[in-house]
Amino acid sequence: MSEAPKANAVIGQSGGPTGVINASLVGVIEEAAKHPEIENLYGAVHAVAGMVKEDFIDLKKVSAEKLEVIASSPSSALGSSRDKPDEQYCAKILEVFKKRNIRYFFYIGGNDSANTAHIINTMAGESGYELRAFHIPKTVDNDLLVTDHCPGYGTAAKFVANALMGDDLDNRALPGIKVDVIMGRHAGFLTAASVLGRQRDDDGPHLVYVPECGVSMDKLLSDIDNVYKKLGRCVIAVSEGICDEDGVTWAEKIAEEQERDAHGNIQLSGTGALADFLAGKIKGSLGVKRVRADTFGYLQRSFAGLQSEVDAKEARWCGRHAVQYAMEHISGSVAIKRTGDSGNYGIELFRTELSNVAEKTKSLPGEYINAAGNGITDDFVKYAMPLTGGLVKTEYLGNEPRI
Amino acid sequence: MSEAPKANAVIGQSGGPTGVINASLVGVIEEAAKHPEIENLYGAVHAVAGMVKEDFIDLKKVSAEKLEVIASSPSSALGSSRDKPDEQYCAKILEVFKKRNIRYFFYIGGNDSANTAHIINTMAGESGYELRAFHIPKTVDNDLLVTDHCPGYGTAAKFVANALMGDDLDNRALPGIKVDVIMGRHAGFLTAASVLGRQRDDDGPHLVYVPECGVSMDKLLSDIDNVYKKLGRCVIAVSEGICDEDGVTWAEKIAEEQERDAHGNIQLSGTGALADFLAGKIKGSLGVKRVRADTFGYLQRSFAGLQSEVDAKEARWCGRHAVQYAMEHISGSVAIKRTGDSGNYGIELFRTELSNVAEKTKSLPGEYINAAGNGITDDFVKYAMPLTGGLVKTEYLGNEPRI
Repeated sequence: MSEAPKANAVIGQSGGPTGVINASLVGVIEEAAKHPEIENLYGAVHAVAGMVKEDFIDLKKVSAEKLEVIASSPSSALGSSRDKPDEQYCAKILEVFKKRNIRYFFYIGGNDSANTAHIINTMAGESGYELRAFHIPKTVDNDLLVTDHCPGYGTAAKFVANALMGDDLDNRALPGIKVDVIMGRHAGFLTAASVLGRQRDDDGPHLVYVPECGVSMDKLLSDIDNVYKKLGRCVIAVSEGICDEDGVTWAEKIAEEQERDAHGNIQLSGTGALADFLAGKIKGSLGVKRVRADTFGYLQRSFAGLQSEVDAKEARWCGRHAVQYAMEHISGSVAIKRTGDSGNYGIELFRTELSNVAEKTKSLPGEYINAAGNGITDDFVKYAMPLTGGLVKTEYLGNEPRI
Repeated sequence: MSEAPKANAVIGQSGGPTGVINASLVGVIEEAAKHPEIENLYGAVHAVAGMVKEDFIDLKKVSAEKLEVIASSPSSALGSSRDKPDEQYCAKILEVFKKRNIRYFFYIGGNDSANTAHIINTMAGESGYELRAFHIPKTVDNDLLVTDHCPGYGTAAKFVANALMGDDLDNRALPGIKVDVIMGRHAGFLTAASVLGRQRDDDGPHLVYVPECGVSMDKLLSDIDNVYKKLGRCVIAVSEGICDEDGVTWAEKIAEEQERDAHGNIQLSGTGALADFLAGKIKGSLGVKRVRADTFGYLQRSFAGLQSEVDAKEARWCGRHAVQYAMEHISGSVAIKRTGDSGNYGIELFRTELSNVAEKTKSLPGEYINAAGNGITDDFVKYAMPLTGGLVKTEYLGNEPRI
C-alpha cells in the first residue's frame, strides 16, 4: 500500500436528501482539515453534475460556525443529483479529477452512489491514476447492505414515529379509520418505524403493511374491519410500495384501473393517489363514515429541527472515518457495526469494499414482520428504537376510571 | 354579582385537536384544585357527546406527573366531538348539569364551542339555574374574533414553518416545482405561516395563496412560470381552501371537472386530490419535468414532540384564567391581548362575552397579503413569529464562492 498522496479532494452528496446527510458532509470537512495530505477540498455542487461541469465550492473556506448550522440543517447543502453516471459520464469526471489533481473522492449516498464511486475508482486504476474513492452511506430507506443501519434512517424514523404518535392520539379523539402512506418503494424499514411510538396496548398503528409482504385488497379490508369492530377505530401504516399478493404494487393496479375507467383528463398519478384510493375502497366496502388518508411525502426526509441526535452523531462519524480510511486504503464504503444490546446501544465503524454495497439493496428482514403479514415485531423495535435517539412520552385520559 | 357557588365543574375539549389543547385542559385542572368552590371536576369524554351520556372522568384523581405528560401531548386527551348541539341537545346537557349539580362549565374549542357554551348558559339563566360557562379558545386556523391569536395556532405554525424550511432546502438540492397544500378552508393564517422560516432572499415558499384572495389558474401558472424562469425552481404554499377569482374553491372546481369527465369509479375526492390536480396542471402547462405536490394533512394539528413553548405556556394560562374568571363572572371567553412590540413580545389575558366569539370567524387581514395576492408581508411575520417560540436556523452551501 502506497503512502497517501498529497493532492486535492472532492466531496458530493447524491440522491434524495436526508436529515443528517449534512452531518456526514461536515464530518468529512472537519476531518480533512486534520490531514495535510488533503490540499483543497472541493464541494461538488449537485453531485456528479457539478463534477463534470467543474462547479466546485472551496469547503476549506467555510467557517466553523456555519458548518455547525449546516450539520443540523436538513437536505443536501451542496445540492444533489439523480444522475446515474454511465461509463462515459464517469470518464468525464475522471478527466476533471486528473486536470484538478483530485485524488480523494468522497461520495455520500445510497447504493447507486457506491456504484458510481466503484466505477470511477476502477477506471482510475485501469488508467494508472491513483485515486482513493470512498462511499459514505445515506438513505432514509435503510436499504444498504453490510451496514447495520444507514445514517438518515434514524431521523426519518423519528419523524414517522412522532407523526404516528400524534395521529393515533388524533384518531382516539375523533375515532374512525385513518390510513398513513409512508415512504419506501421496496424496503419497509421506514413504514415499520410507525410502530416505534406505541406506548399502550391499543395504540396505533394497528396494522402495518410493507412492500416485502404482499396483501390482497380483501385481506386488507378484512384486517381493518376486525380492528374497527374491536376498537371502534383503526390506524393503518402503509408503504407507498404496498403490493398485492401477486407482487404487483397497488400503485400499478390503480393506474390500470384508471386506464380501464377514465376517458377524461383526470390522472390519479400524484402522490396522494394511493392514499385516496385506499380511503375510497375502505369507505365503500366497510360502510364507515369517517375514513381519512394522508401521504407524508417529502416531510419525512427534509424537516427542519427534528434530527435524531444519535443519527446526527453517527452520520458525522461516518464522514470523519471516510477520510481516515482514505489515508490507509484505496477505496471503500463506511459501514456501521452494532455493539452491545438494545439497553446498551453502541456502534463501531468499519470499512467494506465498494462492490459489497454497490447496486444491491436490503429488504426488511422476515423476523421483523409478524406472522399475519400485517404488523411489526418487537425485535424490530429493539433494532430501530436506539436509532431515533429516544422518543417523547405521550398520555391521554380516555381510559381513566369514570365518575 | 352573587358569590361563586360551591358545586361541581365539567370540562370538555371540542372540534379538531391541536398541539396544545391539552395544556389548556391541564391549566383548568390545576387552577380548579386551588378553588374550594369547585368540588368535583368532571372530564367529559368526547365533549358534548360525553355530557349527554354522563361519560365523565374524575379529573381531580389524575396525578400531577401524568398531567405534565398530558400537557405536552398532542390531540384532545379527553376525546373530542364534531357534534354541533342544537337546543334540544343543549337541553339534555343542562338536565345532566342539574342532576349532577354542575354549575361550572369549561369548554375548550373554536367558535362553535363558544356558541354551545353561550346557548347552554342562556338556557340555564332562563330556567333560573345558576351556571357559569366559560370558553377557552383553541384552533390551528387562528380564526377566532376578539383574541389577538388562538392557542394551538403557534404550534401548528411552527410545524408548517419547519416543514417549509426543510422542503425548500430539499427543492434547492433537487430543483423543480413543489406545491404544498396546507390546512385552512376559510382562513389563511396557517398557510401564511409557511413563510416564517425564510432566512435568505431566495428562500421559499416563493408564492403563497390563501383563501382570502382568489386566483385564477392562468394567474397561478404565470406566477409559477415567472419564479421558475428566474430561480430555476419554485416552492408554492397553497391553502386547501384556495379559490378562483369568482370565489369558487378549487376543490369544488375539481369535483365539477370530475363529474363532467369521469364515468368510472375513480373519485378525486380525497385529501391528496387538490395537490395532485395542481401538480398535473403545472406539469401539463409549463412543461417542467420535476413537479411534486404534498398535502400536509393531520400532521399539522397532531404531531408529537414539536410544541411551540410560547403556545403551550399561553394555552395553559388560558385554562387557568378561565377558572379564575368563573369565580367572578357568570360567563365569558378567554382572550389574548398582545403587549409590547415584536422584539419584546408579551401578552395579557382578558375576558370577553361569549356572544362576541360565538359563530363568527376572522380572516387573514388584508395587510398581511401582498399587493399581487401571491405572497405574505413582513407585518405578518412580525405578528406570527413570536407565537412559534422561535425557529431553528438553517444553512446551505450553494451560494458560496466557487473555486
